[in-house]
Amino acid sequence: MTNLAIALLGQKFMGRAHSNAWGQVNKFFDLPLKAALDVVVGRDVSELAAFAKRWGWQRFAADWRAVVRDDAVGLVDIVTPNDLHAEPALAALEAGKHVACEKPLAGTLDQARAMRDAAKKHAKKAKTFVWFNYRRCPAVALAQRLIASGKLGRIYHVRAHYLQEWGGPDTPLLWRFQKKIAGSGAHGDLNAHIVDMARFLLGDEIVEVHGAVARTFVTERVIPGSTKTGKSDVDDAVLFLASFKNGAVASFEASRVAFGHQNDNSIEVNGEKGSLRFSFEDMNVLQYADATAPRATSGWTRIMATEGAHHPYVKAWWPSAHVLGYEHGFVNMAADILRVLAGQEPEAPLPDFDDAYQTQRVLEAALLSAKERTAIKLAQVK
Amino acid sequence: MTNLAIALLGQKFMGRAHSNAWGQVNKFFDLPLKAALDVVVGRDVSELAAFAKRWGWQRFAADWRAVVRDDAVGLVDIVTPNDLHAEPALAALEAGKHVACEKPLAGTLDQARAMRDAAKKHAKKAKTFVWFNYRRCPAVALAQRLIASGKLGRIYHVRAHYLQEWGGPDTPLLWRFQKKIAGSGAHGDLNAHIVDMARFLLGDEIVEVHGAVARTFVTERVIPGSTKTGKSDVDDAVLFLASFKNGAVASFEASRVAFGHQNDNSIEVNGEKGSLRFSFEDMNVLQYADATAPRATSGWTRIMATEGAHHPYVKAWWPSAHVLGYEHGFVNMAADILRVLAGQEPEAPLPDFDDAYQTQRVLEAALLSAKERTAIKLAQVK
Amino acid sequence: MTNLAIALLGQKFMGRAHSNAWGQVNKFFDLPLKAALDVVVGRDVSELAAFAKRWGWQRFAADWRAVVRDDAVGLVDIVTPNDLHAEPALAALEAGKHVACEKPLAGTLDQARAMRDAAKKHAKKAKTFVWFNYRRCPAVALAQRLIASGKLGRIYHVRAHYLQEWGGPDTPLLWRFQKKIAGSGAHGDLNAHIVDMARFLLGDEIVEVHGAVARTFVTERVIPGSTKTGKSDVDDAVLFLASFKNGAVASFEASRVAFGHQNDNSIEVNGEKGSLRFSFEDMNVLQYADATAPRATSGWTRIMATEGAHHPYVKAWWPSAHVLGYEHGFVNMAADILRVLAGQEPEAPLPDFDDAYQTQRVLEAALLSAKERTAIKLAQVK
Amino acid sequence: MTNLAIALLGQKFMGRAHSNAWGQVNKFFDLPLKAALDVVVGRDVSELAAFAKRWGWQRFAADWRAVVRDDAVGLVDIVTPNDLHAEPALAALEAGKHVACEKPLAGTLDQARAMRDAAKKHAKKAKTFVWFNYRRCPAVALAQRLIASGKLGRIYHVRAHYLQEWGGPDTPLLWRFQKKIAGSGAHGDLNAHIVDMARFLLGDEIVEVHGAVARTFVTERVIPGSTKTGKSDVDDAVLFLASFKNGAVASFEASRVAFGHQNDNSIEVNGEKGSLRFSFEDMNVLQYADATAPRATSGWTRIMATEGAHHPYVKAWWPSAHVLGYEHGFVNMAADILRVLAGQEPEAPLPDFDDAYQTQRVLEAALLSAKERTAIKLAQVK
Repeated sequence: MTNLAIALLGQKFMGRAHSNAWGQVNKFFDLPLKAALDVVVGRDVSELAAFAKRWGWQRFAADWRAVVRDDAVGLVDIVTPNDLHAEPALAALEAGKHVACEKPLAGTLDQARAMRDAAKKHAKKAKTFVWFNYRRCPAVALAQRLIASGKLGRIYHVRAHYLQEWGGPDTPLLWRFQKKIAGSGAHGDLNAHIVDMARFLLGDEIVEVHGAVARTFVTERVIPGSTKTGKSDVDDAVLFLASFKNGAVASFEASRVAFGHQNDNSIEVNGEKGSLRFSFEDMNVLQYADATAPRATSGWTRIMATEGAHHPYVKAWWPSAHVLGYEHGFVNMAADILRVLAGQEPEAPLPDFDDAYQTQRVLEAALLSAKERTAIKLAQVK
Repeated sequence: MTNLAIALLGQKFMGRAHSNAWGQVNKFFDLPLKAALDVVVGRDVSELAAFAKRWGWQRFAADWRAVVRDDAVGLVDIVTPNDLHAEPALAALEAGKHVACEKPLAGTLDQARAMRDAAKKHAKKAKTFVWFNYRRCPAVALAQRLIASGKLGRIYHVRAHYLQEWGGPDTPLLWRFQKKIAGSGAHGDLNAHIVDMARFLLGDEIVEVHGAVARTFVTERVIPGSTKTGKSDVDDAVLFLASFKNGAVASFEASRVAFGHQNDNSIEVNGEKGSLRFSFEDMNVLQYADATAPRATSGWTRIMATEGAHHPYVKAWWPSAHVLGYEHGFVNMAADILRVLAGQEPEAPLPDFDDAYQTQRVLEAALLSAKERTAIKLAQVK
Repeated sequence: MTNLAIALLGQKFMGRAHSNAWGQVNKFFDLPLKAALDVVVGRDVSELAAFAKRWGWQRFAADWRAVVRDDAVGLVDIVTPNDLHAEPALAALEAGKHVACEKPLAGTLDQARAMRDAAKKHAKKAKTFVWFNYRRCPAVALAQRLIASGKLGRIYHVRAHYLQEWGGPDTPLLWRFQKKIAGSGAHGDLNAHIVDMARFLLGDEIVEVHGAVARTFVTERVIPGSTKTGKSDVDDAVLFLASFKNGAVASFEASRVAFGHQNDNSIEVNGEKGSLRFSFEDMNVLQYADATAPRATSGWTRIMATEGAHHPYVKAWWPSAHVLGYEHGFVNMAADILRVLAGQEPEAPLPDFDDAYQTQRVLEAALLSAKERTAIKLAQVK
Repeated sequence: MTNLAIALLGQKFMGRAHSNAWGQVNKFFDLPLKAALDVVVGRDVSELAAFAKRWGWQRFAADWRAVVRDDAVGLVDIVTPNDLHAEPALAALEAGKHVACEKPLAGTLDQARAMRDAAKKHAKKAKTFVWFNYRRCPAVALAQRLIASGKLGRIYHVRAHYLQEWGGPDTPLLWRFQKKIAGSGAHGDLNAHIVDMARFLLGDEIVEVHGAVARTFVTERVIPGSTKTGKSDVDDAVLFLASFKNGAVASFEASRVAFGHQNDNSIEVNGEKGSLRFSFEDMNVLQYADATAPRATSGWTRIMATEGAHHPYVKAWWPSAHVLGYEHGFVNMAADILRVLAGQEPEAPLPDFDDAYQTQRVLEAALLSAKERTAIKLAQVK
């Protein structure tokens, strides 16, 4: 079996998730290509040696510029902060490498467009991928198949939110709350996922944003290691309304201050022939209400999407209801990347740079809508 | 015990719910005033006789004008179609009667304002009430108490939807789909309830609408008793974003084409110290996530709001977890009306005409926002 | 429409539930017979006058012997304590009256047998009914129809429990904890319901009890109005295993000390072709797992049993998902009694004295099994 | 860091789960000892080479007798069929190796006793472990901590079932349905887990079995690769009632024909001060009803046992609500084994051979109870 040498750029939380994915993928999946954990790149070389040893990387390096041009490398996997995606991605594409990049695609729409353009330019030699990992929960991939096969008929509604709770006033002024570093708050971090998921599930594009509101509820936070406070200038929550080309209306909401929701990436789709809903906190389950079923016994069916013979990705793992967890989405994605690079079909469609750029356009439109302040004041309505 | 003679205007679905409420209220509740089912008014007198006998009304009549002036009558209860609320309400107030009116307050904002003004003018003699019945589910009234007592602290988010499923393309062109008769579709019917509930729970007013979208998914429907189709010109769904005076952001959504949701009047409130959520389809339950509880054992607590000693209205009914149903909300409201008219406190705040007028202003603002079409086209975002 | 004059024996909790049922039934249901609330009988006549007025009984009386022979009376409804069921039931049957009796049928198996025999003897003139009210939740009646129509195929398992939580050590020595008054504890009160429900759903009889355990966890309780304690000598919990004629195995458990369960009357049935489950705390819902459905989308379906066109009893009430509560089961049963007495079919099979006697035999067999102490000591197994 | 060389005996489903556990454990956990995947042993050497390569075993071998005596080996991990546990375990202990063995401990109680005795004899040199993996779900380990700390007070009830659905009449005559090979059916496979879990959670021993029933619903099954049928002579379901030394009563049920339950390992414990429940199909969740909480807001709390700072094992994995799956239980157990072998405390108590032998005694007592047929025939009860 041919090896694909991976170069990983970045070593934090996502570096761990990706190292695990590349290490596990050929153990569980039967694939035409083998991921070889070749080299991990990071700025803190002392830490890096231990990281490489722990996760099985053959080499480590501090200079990504050399690595992305290294002949030994087949795929560059970018998990650096958002503002550091574009430069290595462009260099890697230029060097003819395949590139897999964490989401959101880039720190700015301009960067995202440049990445999309570069991907198009080098399309003959290099493929691009973006790690919208939640697409690869079996329940989500199943939902996509059901919708694509027409089970819901015409789509009327999308209702998506990604809610977390860790951003209350007691949380200190981490880099995630500073715009110059993080770009945005909940919007780029969380709305990116649900916009991607809605587009993925519907196989349709958002054409309009009908209104938005962004809020920073906590504007002053304690500076870590200090008794002083500093300004938090990113959004804690962003809500917006949109519509799709085929007429469906959609609501999106991201928040870091929705207590009770720890990682609640949820979506519901209502169509003429039925509805589907998913929440990541119950990730092995897809709920389905079939409008074509006999009325006396219809309702929401709780599908355990854990049957190897019937549900995407599951065959590689365990028997029925021997449930999967968070990191399996990454392993499943690694499997699909290896399949596609070997000329096979993925189990569910993979997002490339162009696809992720479309998601980023939607996020930008929502921000524009929130800024233009076209709101109706109640005081006007007597 | 003093009797309060009730005159009921209307005899359809809501006539039944109200007749039941006035008939049941003194059986279950110990109250300072007794509801006497005096007279029911309707246009179809033949049907009316049977209705009156069945539900225990002493009299029936076709002319509401005479009835609202009848000295024997103490309270006029209006359950006619929305466009027929204002005229009898104004006449009844003029005659010094207490008036209870179904929601939404009126067919138009102008009518609603006139009703509010008349209520203010006659406030010394007559009290007004609006049947936002869902406030009186014990679980909802409990939520209001918890929020009012500061359990959630500062409120960040409201997330409300009222979803039904009966309005798909196979549903014929009922009067509810004709604007000239119904005024609006899901908006007035369903959003009215959740806007009231949000205002009730927060004890706060909406000050801004940040965007809205209204959709008629099914524009042609079969005319009942015909093979032809006619135009459906009301909204099937309306979504809008709003914010409250104290800074909370809110989303509202009403739909008649959300398959899987039969009568899903749902609301969630997230605050600094915790969250609450309610869905009418599970009406005896209030979910509570307490951010001040020890982290190792915190989460969403499913409160069965069925304890007589601890939950509003329940003492009048059955032991713990001997659950209540839809019509109990109406009986609970009748009990509160009788208490208020006898100078006592209600178990939960009652909405009067002014309160319902504020809700109607919000609905109007949402429609304005949807009409002004200030949407951002994705095509503008490159 | 013909009237059926009801005589109610008893006036406490169940007297209230039955008064409400007879008062509501002809308001909501269209029936061939009208329940007339004729006379209520109780020992405390002073209280009785107020009770009769409140609930609409025309007369009240202290002497049940005269009432059960009163020519005006058509049906005698018995809601007295369990040890006072047999005598008035026998007298009423002797007098040719129809008899409806609360569950369990009697205080002892001997009494139950006598009642069964008398019912058989007078069967030509008088019909008997036993208020196993939970059969008449629409979700339960739907389950019975589905099983009777073969939807589950051969039945393998029944798993039933009726759990409450009010009987902890802080609860004083109420009459319910004294054997000489109450007969038994959780067993007669709660297991009676789930044994009836299992027999009802399966349409099959229990032929064997395979083991049982009864426990009194709290043996001393404070005597109400005293600082002393007295002996609690009824069971707090009884568990037993049984099998049905057609081979299904079953477990039954009743408890008053299962915190978190307030009125959790639950049953699950597993068959070759699928499974059904119900919990009264979510009484409008029936869960159905269809083994014949396509595997990719099968699972537990949450049926809201609230559709008038498709679910038993619902047509009489409200639209879809305008949910029902505890007392509706009694009203539904009153409707079925009136139908049967007018020669029509009930919406779901009604239990008569013979049927309730079979349930009582099962309870007796469980007690025998618990007493015979045929347990295996672990100390015997090395 | 010191290495512990692992020898794995067996290579099927469990071989995969254990290989993964040993491979992952030092990547996610910071531990005082490192698992080295030294040698895997199996009968089919051709298959074994690929298996070893895939999972990272340094060597493979066909002769377990040599391997268990190999000086290089530190721990022998046994995942062979149940009847092949005892012999290699005894040999490994004799050779001074630590032994980890899959559950149930052995094919017969005699073998289990011999293994327990050998473990005792070699206790100074060798430690033993049994892979009751479900103890190591964070939610289960949390439950154990809460009960051990007295949160539930005196325990009244245990209600446990382990239900699966794959054993219907269409399933062919696999080895699992043949007694001579499998020993028992659902009983040894599934009841073993829930008896262990009940003993683990309560920290108490079962002293009595009060009744049991075992059933083979499907007695003839198609022989794989044939059109003929053969006899299935193991139990499809076993139910039994038991009681603990401290007075709690318990029900246990295992079934392979409970449609709708795919891997439903469920347990509920009710105590004087509260209740806990867990189902593996929702493995990241522990439900807790706290009887000492204020009544107005108490109920079942759905704890996401996914907080690194508060819940066992989670710190090694991902942030809050980035949920875990089936195989994490094995990795968590491997971590605890390594800790214990290095002289540290495990995160939750580990079962050794003596502990697993106690579970096996309970299973044996249940079988005895089922065989002795001390059932009460209903025909005896008139």
